Amino acid sequence: MVAQRAIYLPLGGAGEIGMNAYVYGYGKPDQERLILVDLGVTFPDMDGTPGVNLILPDITWLKERRDRLEAIFITHAHEDHVGAVGHFYEQLGVPIYARAFTSNIARRKLEEYGIGADAVKTVGAWPEKVKAGPFEVSFLPISHSIPESSALVLDCPDGRIVHTGDFKLDQTPLVGEAYDPALWAEVAKPGVKALVCDSTNVFSPHAGRSEATLGPDIEKLVSDATGMVVATTFASNVARVKTLAEAGDRAGRSICLLGRAMRRMIEASIETGVLTNFPNVIGPEDAVQMPRENVMLLVTGSQGERRAASAQLARGKYNGLVLKEGDTFLFSSKTIPGNERGVIRIINQFSELGVDVIDDSNGLYHVSGHANRPDLAAMHDIVNPQMVIPMHGEHRHLREHAKLAESKGRAGIVAVNGMMLNLSGNAPTVAEYVETGRTYLDGSVQIGAMDGVVRDRIRMALNGHVIVTVILDEEDEPLGDPWCDVMGLPAQGRGNAPLVDVLEADLSQFLGRAGAKTLTDDSKLEEGLRRTARQTTNDEIGKKPEVTVIVSRLG
Amino acid sequence: MVAQRAIYLPLGGAGEIGMNAYVYGYGKPDQERLILVDLGVTFPDMDGTPGVNLILPDITWLKERRDRLEAIFITHAHEDHVGAVGHFYEQLGVPIYARAFTSNIARRKLEEYGIGADAVKTVGAWPEKVKAGPFEVSFLPISHSIPESSALVLDCPDGRIVHTGDFKLDQTPLVGEAYDPALWAEVAKPGVKALVCDSTNVFSPHAGRSEATLGPDIEKLVSDATGMVVATTFASNVARVKTLAEAGDRAGRSICLLGRAMRRMIEASIETGVLTNFPNVIGPEDAVQMPRENVMLLVTGSQGERRAASAQLARGKYNGLVLKEGDTFLFSSKTIPGNERGVIRIINQFSELGVDVIDDSNGLYHVSGHANRPDLAAMHDIVNPQMVIPMHGEHRHLREHAKLAESKGRAGIVAVNGMMLNLSGNAPTVAEYVETGRTYLDGSVQIGAMDGVVRDRIRMALNGHVIVTVILDEEDEPLGDPWCDVMGLPAQGRGNAPLVDVLEADLSQFLGRAGAKTLTDDSKLEEGLRRTARQTTNDEIGKKPEVTVIVSRLG
Repeated sequence: MVAQRAIYLPLGGAGEIGMNAYVYGYGKPDQERLILVDLGVTFPDMDGTPGVNLILPDITWLKERRDRLEAIFITHAHEDHVGAVGHFYEQLGVPIYARAFTSNIARRKLEEYGIGADAVKTVGAWPEKVKAGPFEVSFLPISHSIPESSALVLDCPDGRIVHTGDFKLDQTPLVGEAYDPALWAEVAKPGVKALVCDSTNVFSPHAGRSEATLGPDIEKLVSDATGMVVATTFASNVARVKTLAEAGDRAGRSICLLGRAMRRMIEASIETGVLTNFPNVIGPEDAVQMPRENVMLLVTGSQGERRAASAQLARGKYNGLVLKEGDTFLFSSKTIPGNERGVIRIINQFSELGVDVIDDSNGLYHVSGHANRPDLAAMHDIVNPQMVIPMHGEHRHLREHAKLAESKGRAGIVAVNGMMLNLSGNAPTVAEYVETGRTYLDGSVQIGAMDGVVRDRIRMALNGHVIVTVILDEEDEPLGDPWCDVMGLPAQGRGNAPLVDVLEADLSQFLGRAGAKTLTDDSKLEEGLRRTARQTTNDEIGKKPEVTVIVSRLG
Repeated sequence: MVAQRAIYLPLGGAGEIGMNAYVYGYGKPDQERLILVDLGVTFPDMDGTPGVNLILPDITWLKERRDRLEAIFITHAHEDHVGAVGHFYEQLGVPIYARAFTSNIARRKLEEYGIGADAVKTVGAWPEKVKAGPFEVSFLPISHSIPESSALVLDCPDGRIVHTGDFKLDQTPLVGEAYDPALWAEVAKPGVKALVCDSTNVFSPHAGRSEATLGPDIEKLVSDATGMVVATTFASNVARVKTLAEAGDRAGRSICLLGRAMRRMIEASIETGVLTNFPNVIGPEDAVQMPRENVMLLVTGSQGERRAASAQLARGKYNGLVLKEGDTFLFSSKTIPGNERGVIRIINQFSELGVDVIDDSNGLYHVSGHANRPDLAAMHDIVNPQMVIPMHGEHRHLREHAKLAESKGRAGIVAVNGMMLNLSGNAPTVAEYVETGRTYLDGSVQIGAMDGVVRDRIRMALNGHVIVTVILDEEDEPLGDPWCDVMGLPAQGRGNAPLVDVLEADLSQFLGRAGAKTLTDDSKLEEGLRRTARQTTNDEIGKKPEVTVIVSRLG
């Protein structure tokens, strides 16, 4: 008889920060009953994914085994954990479980795809349990930078697995549940097989600070300001939004929320009861009418996103509001690596307007939502698992986190996307390598990252595009001269002759010399024209363009 | 009689970090005799300038006045100060003055354009003077992260202007001249009209540290390492390269220089006598043969550049060398904002190879080459000018630096590219606004940033490209169906029909309905086909592509 086993398989989130999707299974090899933890997105950039709307995990492996999939569990409502539910729900066809606030957000996403609210089952916190095949799953409250973030306690016949989700150890998080050491000790007590653990801040050497430490400094900043005050943070950081709003309120300022995500998050928080006593808000049409020193704007766009409220204010006007000399703009946030250019662009635009910009560089106005290195070590000790499996990190984070675990005598392993682990022994072992990757939402269509579509767009961006058109008559003889259209190339090359003229002359010459063997063979003819166009363009302007050849035969 | 005046006009470098080009003039308005200080480049990125090779300042204003231009002075040999001399020398046609090391580098650049060594005049340091029209110019030694960096003392009939160039106040810079307070006091003594001053580090609150402080920590790191040690820094930071090489040498390691810029900089430093006693180096073919613990590689690519030695080592092999578990890679450098993605990519690739990566986050292995806020204040005090004009900074830096000057009772002004200042009063005033911008080196051709070429490439990258071809016969009737080629678009849209098929069907339908008025009018026909192609593509895949329409008339 083949032994049953517990498996762990990250399809996204392990080897990157973003696009979280972790499969757990229990059963005989290749017959395990499966659950999926989180189903998030990551964001495109011009470097590697121009024109792409969103990046989703490639869940082909899971779709091919959907008959074995029991359910989806969402730890919290950040985009990199819940963002793909709308795109994949119908392909997977199993219920989604989440706590109330996360459910509220997930349902809004599903609604955009015409999927009803009952697709998401709202469940309570530990000790409430959901049965999903061989698993019993419970949501264990933990602090993070969004309300109701939860770890998952996954019980299967082989033992208990704790999947932390994103977390910090904050006993005064202001909104949502505090980290409760006693509760965690209770969960750990029967013994834990594996701790699958957030790795984001493993390189931050000092213990993390509580959300509650920010209040006094933010309050002082706002009460000292003379003009309008504008602050941005992650819209989902409801505790921070509350701290900012209360500081404004105490300074005699009316609060105005700008940006769709900001309004939606506050709405969801109030609807689900996680946010209470939020100051009254006014609309932008009222804010415009009031003296500047009586207004505080809380806006989206802490990462420099071009369409967010902050970027629009930096460029000029948003909802009738214009910033000017004497106003203050606060980034109550950290710039995620890779977003520096966009953020710096905004800061310089505000500088041109005379607005004083304050960021988190002095450490007074932002704390991270993730556990730092000493907090991770504390988590290992509290849960005291047999093995630690780092997740939610780039390779460098996972490796450092595994070393940290090993330094305390616990088994650790670096498991990246596609690496299926067998958790049933005393230490994790690699069971199998599964093909994984990324799926692009391109416009309204899902395409594979390796389909070549985006690669072609990048090539056009780097090299420009030449289109060569040739018409051949019934005798396969060229009808007139070939001609060229170019897009994204300098109009003139060496000697200032128009590039198109030089191209057409060289292509004509090529055609004039081409024999019947070439003229009657589409692929030969296209290849010759393409090579000529690339060579001429390279001679003229020093670039080898993408070339599309269109041969029309009248015959 | 119209009074003469001294003017300052940044064409690049003011409102950005990069592409430095500062014009000074003296004379009657619009007849000033001019000199140019620095002629640098800035680097393209995929976000805004895909496919561009280099970004140069737009020097149209200067070219139109080249009969008034006396000379070009280069403060130091960094690319953002000297990088454009080869591209513009012939358009400007005046001599270039620099000190020996800078001349050596400038001549190598001019040589690539077939320009002889005599284009660059090597001059000595203060008190040596170069006469350039109404100016007497002297190179005043100052410490920076490259040998022989110099401020310029510009004397004209209206007084003395000090242009700092890039600098820090380092009395133990290891290579090149130390900052010499007595010398600077001597220059300042007769009174200084204007200090035009580096602003890069105005937001760094603590006094800068000397290059000499790094030696012991670097030495300890290298001597503790067990496998191969690889270090990267800015190749032009010859002092750092020397510190690293000496640490390797003392640890019994042979030094191997990898990357063209690294070898060229060391070569130029030895040729010009600024670097002496550099340890012997070995070639990569010898390094491969030696025990790993006896080798230290000094490599290019501190900013994650894809083709540099560091990136190639991270991807696998470079010159036969392969890194592995137990090796150490040191970034003795800071990541310039905007380059984070490339650097992090390399760090993760090294992590996958098992290489331990050490960066400057603990402050032990890198110091900046620019003056921090207290150092800037010290410079203001030493030179004690009538006015401070911040340069070499983004808008936020210039603004903060001007505030710093004003806080000490000196006139300050934020002057960005194109803002011509009259320096002849007691405080600077704006004389004129000049049109400035950027010139792209695209392949081998210089094009204007506003020419639309790169904009078209970005559009193709974001939206894809559809090419529609139609042939009309002698009677202006369509000959056969229109057809489509697509590049950079998903192959299938809604309902999984091939996008090209749906496009061709809709375009056929459009042509079938088109009357003679449309069919005989190229622009109407093209417009109709373009609109149809965009609409259909949007319906099918949710993207509005770029469309090129090619109408061939046999008539």
